[in-house]
Amino acid sequence: MGGDNAPGQILDGAAQAANEYGIDISVVGLPGAVQPLLERHPKLTLVPCTQVIGMDEHPAQAVRSKPDSSMNVCARLCRDGRADGWIMATALFVQGRIRGVERPALGSIIPTQHGFAYFLDVGANVDSKPEYLVQFAAMGAVYAREMMGRSEPRVGLLSNGEEEGKGDELVRETAKRLKGTLRGFIGNIEPKDLYAAKADVVVADGFVGNVAIKMAEATAEFLFRNLRDEIPKTTMGKVGGMLIRGQVRQLRARIDWREFGGAPLLGINGIAVIAHGRSDARAIKNAIRVTREAVDAQLVGKIRAEVGR
Amino acid sequence: MGGDNAPGQILDGAAQAANEYGIDISVVGLPGAVQPLLERHPKLTLVPCTQVIGMDEHPAQAVRSKPDSSMNVCARLCRDGRADGWIMATALFVQGRIRGVERPALGSIIPTQHGFAYFLDVGANVDSKPEYLVQFAAMGAVYAREMMGRSEPRVGLLSNGEEEGKGDELVRETAKRLKGTLRGFIGNIEPKDLYAAKADVVVADGFVGNVAIKMAEATAEFLFRNLRDEIPKTTMGKVGGMLIRGQVRQLRARIDWREFGGAPLLGINGIAVIAHGRSDARAIKNAIRVTREAVDAQLVGKIRAEVGR
Repeated sequence: MGGDNAPGQILDGAAQAANEYGIDISVVGLPGAVQPLLERHPKLTLVPCTQVIGMDEHPAQAVRSKPDSSMNVCARLCRDGRADGWIMATALFVQGRIRGVERPALGSIIPTQHGFAYFLDVGANVDSKPEYLVQFAAMGAVYAREMMGRSEPRVGLLSNGEEEGKGDELVRETAKRLKGTLRGFIGNIEPKDLYAAKADVVVADGFVGNVAIKMAEATAEFLFRNLRDEIPKTTMGKVGGMLIRGQVRQLRARIDWREFGGAPLLGINGIAVIAHGRSDARAIKNAIRVTREAVDAQLVGKIRAEVGR
Repeated sequence: MGGDNAPGQILDGAAQAANEYGIDISVVGLPGAVQPLLERHPKLTLVPCTQVIGMDEHPAQAVRSKPDSSMNVCARLCRDGRADGWIMATALFVQGRIRGVERPALGSIIPTQHGFAYFLDVGANVDSKPEYLVQFAAMGAVYAREMMGRSEPRVGLLSNGEEEGKGDELVRETAKRLKGTLRGFIGNIEPKDLYAAKADVVVADGFVGNVAIKMAEATAEFLFRNLRDEIPKTTMGKVGGMLIRGQVRQLRARIDWREFGGAPLLGINGIAVIAHGRSDARAIKNAIRVTREAVDAQLVGKIRAEVGR
C-alpha cells in the first residue's frame, strides 16, 4: 500500500518475480484496492490488511497506532515464519533488533569503476555513536561477504581526507576502535576512492551517508539533464546525441538504483528489504531478488553470529 | 610556493590576471625558485620569503614554526596594508578572526540549474556547534548579497530531508535558531533542491559539507570518465562522441571549479581566497578575480557589520 506506484506497479513487479524466480509471493493490502488487480496475477496471494498509513502521517507513530497496517502485517508474517522476508518503501524498525545490535543500519549499493561497493548507513540513524559505526562496519563486512562474494572485504570510513586523524570526532574515534580489531579495515576513504573501488564496504553515520548518497544521485541527475538539454542545441549535437543514445542508456542502466532494487535493513531480526518510494515494477522485481538472496545467504544468522563474536 | 603546479602555472595565472584586470600583483616565494621565471612576467613583483612548508609537514604546525614561509609573509603583507588580499592553496587560519566570529568558514560556488549557489562550510571546521552554523548562514547571506548580486538571499540548511524536524541534532538545533531570526531562511534543503536552485546559500558543518562537495565532484568525474570510455565502444558512439564534443566541453567548463578559482575564507580579518591545490594558471587567474571582487565589495567590512548586529 506504500510508494508512489502502488499497487499497480508493485503487483506487476511481484508477478514478474514470481514467474522469473519461481518463489511464492504474498501481497499485503486492502482487499478492495488489491483484489481486483489480482485477476491478472494468479500467482500472487493476497493477505488482507485493514488499515493504511497515509502519506501525511508520522510513519513511526502510525506504525504503532495502526497495528493492522500493511507494514505491521508484513512484519508479523515474517515473525511467525509465514514469510522468509518482506519489502517496504521506508526504513522503519517494525521488526525487533538482533540481540546485541545497537542500531540497525540501511545499506545501499554504489556503482564503482570496477563493479559495486556497499555503503551504509544511508539513512536509518542520525547522530550515531562510535559503537554504532563499529557495528555497521562489521555488519557491512558480513553483507559484502555473503551477498557480494567478497571473501575478504575491505572496509573504509567515509571521511573528508584519507590521512589518519582526518574526520570529525565520530570518524576519528571509530577509526581508532576499528584499527586492529576489524580485519580488512583500511582506514578513511574519500568519495573519489569510493568510486575507484578502493573499498568493498564504506561506513558513515546515517545523516552523512544519506546526504552523501543524495548528493551523488542529484549530481548524476543534474549532469544527465544538462547533457540532454545542451547537446541538441547544435545540429551536430542533435545528430551526435542520437548516435550515442544507446551507450548513454547502458551507462544510466548500470548506475540506476532500480537495478539494485533495494537493500535489507541490517541488524533486525528478519529480512526486510527497503525499496525506493519511487519503485516501479522493475525495481520491485529486483527488490524481491535481493530479498531471496538475503534469505538464501542466511544473512540474519550470519549477522547474529558476527555480532555475538 | 604551494599547490601541485607551483610556481610555473601560478606565475602564468598571476601574469594573466595582472594584464587582464590591471591590478598590481606580488608573488611571494623563494627568490631562487621564482626570480628566474619572472623575466617572462615583468608585471609581477617578487616579495621574498626564506622558508617553505613541505607537503609532508603538518600545515598548522608548520605555519607556526616557520614565520617566514610564504603563507606567513602573505598574511603579513595583508595585515600591514601592503596587499588588499591574497590567495593560498589550503584553508589555514593564518590571519585572525573578525571580532565576534566564532569560526571562519570556507565557501564554494556550486553550479545549479539556474546559475550558482554558495555552499559553506566545505572544510574549514569539523564538529561545528549550532552557533557556528548560525553565523555561517549570516556570513553566507552577506557573500551572496555582496558577491553574487542576490539582493534577498534565500538560505537553506543541507539536510537529509526538507521537512522540519529532519536532520541530525546539529541541523535541528540550528534550524530552530535560524527560524524567525535570519531573513531569507527557508529551512532544510536536500541535494536535489540545491541543484534546482531553491537556495542562494546552503549551510552545513565543514565535515558534512566537505564530504558532500567531494561526493559531487567524484560523481561528476565518474560519470564523465564512464561516458568517455563507453561511448566510443561502438562505431556509432565513436562518431556521435566526436559530434557532441563541443557541447560536452561547454558543460564541463560551466561546472569546472577552475572557472570559479576559489572563494574567500569568511570571518577572518582580511581577504584570503582559498584556491584548489591542483590550480592551474586559469584557476589562479580566476582566484585573483575573486580576490579583487571581494576587496571591491568590502566583504570584510560587511561581514564585520553583520556579525556585530
